[in-house]
Amino acid sequence: MGYFDAASSAPLHPVARQALLASLDEGWADPARLYREGRRARMLLDAAREAAAEAVGCRADELVFTSSGTRAVHAGAAGVLAGRRRVGRHLIVSAVEHSSVLHSADAHEAAGGTVTQVTVDRGGSVDAAGYGDALRPDTALACLQSANHEVGTEQPVAEVADVCRAAGVPLLVDAAQSLGWGRVEGGWSVLTGSAHKWGGPPGVGLLVVRKGVRFAAQGPADERESGRAAGFENVPAIVAAAASLRAVRAEAAQEAVRLRELTERIRARVPREVADVEVVGDPRRRLPGIVTFSCLYVDGESLLHELDRAGFSVSSGSSCTSSTLTPSHVLKAMGVLSEGNVRVSLPFGAAEEDVERFLGALPGAVAAVRRTLGAPEPRAAVRDDVLVVDSLGKRCPIPVIELARVIGDVPVGGLVRVLSDDEAARLDIPAWCEMRGQEYVGEEPAERGTAHLVRRLG
Amino acid sequence: MGYFDAASSAPLHPVARQALLASLDEGWADPARLYREGRRARMLLDAAREAAAEAVGCRADELVFTSSGTRAVHAGAAGVLAGRRRVGRHLIVSAVEHSSVLHSADAHEAAGGTVTQVTVDRGGSVDAAGYGDALRPDTALACLQSANHEVGTEQPVAEVADVCRAAGVPLLVDAAQSLGWGRVEGGWSVLTGSAHKWGGPPGVGLLVVRKGVRFAAQGPADERESGRAAGFENVPAIVAAAASLRAVRAEAAQEAVRLRELTERIRARVPREVADVEVVGDPRRRLPGIVTFSCLYVDGESLLHELDRAGFSVSSGSSCTSSTLTPSHVLKAMGVLSEGNVRVSLPFGAAEEDVERFLGALPGAVAAVRRTLGAPEPRAAVRDDVLVVDSLGKRCPIPVIELARVIGDVPVGGLVRVLSDDEAARLDIPAWCEMRGQEYVGEEPAERGTAHLVRRLG
Repeated sequence: MGYFDAASSAPLHPVARQALLASLDEGWADPARLYREGRRARMLLDAAREAAAEAVGCRADELVFTSSGTRAVHAGAAGVLAGRRRVGRHLIVSAVEHSSVLHSADAHEAAGGTVTQVTVDRGGSVDAAGYGDALRPDTALACLQSANHEVGTEQPVAEVADVCRAAGVPLLVDAAQSLGWGRVEGGWSVLTGSAHKWGGPPGVGLLVVRKGVRFAAQGPADERESGRAAGFENVPAIVAAAASLRAVRAEAAQEAVRLRELTERIRARVPREVADVEVVGDPRRRLPGIVTFSCLYVDGESLLHELDRAGFSVSSGSSCTSSTLTPSHVLKAMGVLSEGNVRVSLPFGAAEEDVERFLGALPGAVAAVRRTLGAPEPRAAVRDDVLVVDSLGKRCPIPVIELARVIGDVPVGGLVRVLSDDEAARLDIPAWCEMRGQEYVGEEPAERGTAHLVRRLG
Repeated sequence: MGYFDAASSAPLHPVARQALLASLDEGWADPARLYREGRRARMLLDAAREAAAEAVGCRADELVFTSSGTRAVHAGAAGVLAGRRRVGRHLIVSAVEHSSVLHSADAHEAAGGTVTQVTVDRGGSVDAAGYGDALRPDTALACLQSANHEVGTEQPVAEVADVCRAAGVPLLVDAAQSLGWGRVEGGWSVLTGSAHKWGGPPGVGLLVVRKGVRFAAQGPADERESGRAAGFENVPAIVAAAASLRAVRAEAAQEAVRLRELTERIRARVPREVADVEVVGDPRRRLPGIVTFSCLYVDGESLLHELDRAGFSVSSGSSCTSSTLTPSHVLKAMGVLSEGNVRVSLPFGAAEEDVERFLGALPGAVAAVRRTLGAPEPRAAVRDDVLVVDSLGKRCPIPVIELARVIGDVPVGGLVRVLSDDEAARLDIPAWCEMRGQEYVGEEPAERGTAHLVRRLG
């Protein structure tokens, strides 16, 4: 099996499946009821909460089950922001958070709050000083993922938590990508997770709020899950989620070593075997199973189709796959190449031979896409001392391909002016310059679109 | 099996179980992804949406899946109220709606909106004229359940929808209790449902918004389910929910006749075989499987325990079981007896012999509770021409028991003054008077608690 998109959703763990089946029979009734079937559901729910709390490293009464990780983030952020409203309405997030966090921030801003985005380095990592600089007397909440979902970079959560704690500001940690691998260390205040990322069933998230954190649940009142997650409890799925979290944790240490070796192999061999590739994400502080790279002169969607035809399921943060046609906000914040982007995220138990098959198939897939796209000839014209490339109306990765075709036509020190109205070019032309050792001079408004100026250095 | 609480949650239908198992293997991936596993999940999701839309009687693109019926109500009400905010902020609900609707109304009021509650008759039914009277130029939304969850009374949805439509006001119908039995007829605008009420798995609700209804989804943005239900789609559970809805609908007409005969039997025999019982809810316009009655001189919680020991699982809207110690808002709005309240809601396939066993066990269970409670002697004292019963500090059903003990001690035309600080007495003493043909004169503040004045008529 070539399913390499575990960071989106992991296949159901066998333990989860078994627990789900058993609790469909035992746990379908309303756990709020006092009769036999209700008491049985309540016992299952309580036991699942104990197990999940033990895995997270919190008290059972600090943990509630939500209907998804997204809901956990929405409810957690809204609850702390409302609970600490008297302190102020300032929210801090990193620039590379999951969309559930960034959309919570947007909603907060739309409701009159203010938001500071902390930048990341080229590896995708924040540093604690960045959070320290962002803290203000009116900061109600800071959010930081435990590890990035697109490039696998692990964040310095404990250090950031210390900085926040010293200022009396709670830190919400979106632990969706890392919870299967282990507890989140450090003095965080709120934590969220998503069961289908660790092999649990869909329909279960978790929200942990440490005692002492001011929290005011938002939305209509509902007595279930301590008033923090409205709606009938999904006991069978919750039982399965908790069981699979324990199961993956038991295998985590050993599996981490194995998957890390496989992703190391991809990190090392892809740039050797495919020309013009940039591997992105922090090379050391990273999750075991995720590796991400970008291929010049390739559009992500075509490459995904090629790989799918070859039997491999991966995802892409490339501008060319998203329905909005804007590049991944994560790659953008890191300032790395977004075109031809591929994220490989190995599920627990991914087979070595499948990874080898993938490494064997990738060069051909990239070459096929490049062949298709290589056709268009750049319409270049020398204007004064500048070579102008008109890429107006063309989408990623064509502008970069056209730039690469003509850079040799100007003398060293000469300029190429690429006219483009593609949003992705803003990101990819500077990234290409960095990869190729050319100078990105800057951009300026043109009669149509934007002109990107590149100086040939060598 | 004596599980008679289907109105809370129905056991999983065999078809749902089978569909869930199959789609756990086929539908665990992210339906937004373009690779094979994602396309498969998308196909399952699309097919489930088509099937559910057909069962509801709407277009597939009008229906989204939520994580519960409660979430569907919260999202539906909030979305229409926001979408029609320019019209005004007035909301109409019936007094007997499910708590998810009433809590939405509370939240709306807390946010500055206004709410009108439409009253019901003694059978629990609204009438269209009540909604007509409540409509105002600034009415943004009206809500009405298709049938009541506590007493089974079916509401005149089509008539109310006509009245609302004539005023240009959308009607949201909470169809949680009736959707397994059939489509909701009439010109409603928004409809909500809950899969675990029809034998689907927990974790799935549905929200239908007719084309043309102004709707602005609330909360942080999320691209899933047309932006109306945030979080990763629970495809396996959705597939199971849609499959079981089709399955129960195929059996509904036949099963309705069978269950109606069984609940008719309960309606007729309980008052014959147990003294001092009031059957509540509309005797004709009612769901097939629900029957509710209240027993004088009994507390609901003790009776539920007695019945649970005898192997029967039922619920109660009695003041004595709720954690808040206030009687069910439904029984209160109907003005019927709340003490010793029992709701029997038969699941699909409930066996006749189990119903007969229940009818056999009930008189003994009621008698046992009455025996235990019958012990306290009323402390009565004649003050002027009024017999005073001091029930201060005593909870439902003791005040009514003490009243019943002494009513014969005053002459016809004489007064009994019951002192009580129990909230339920407000409801139960007038209800007892109506059942017993005595006159409830009214209540007045006393030195402690409230004095209820009752005149002996016969």
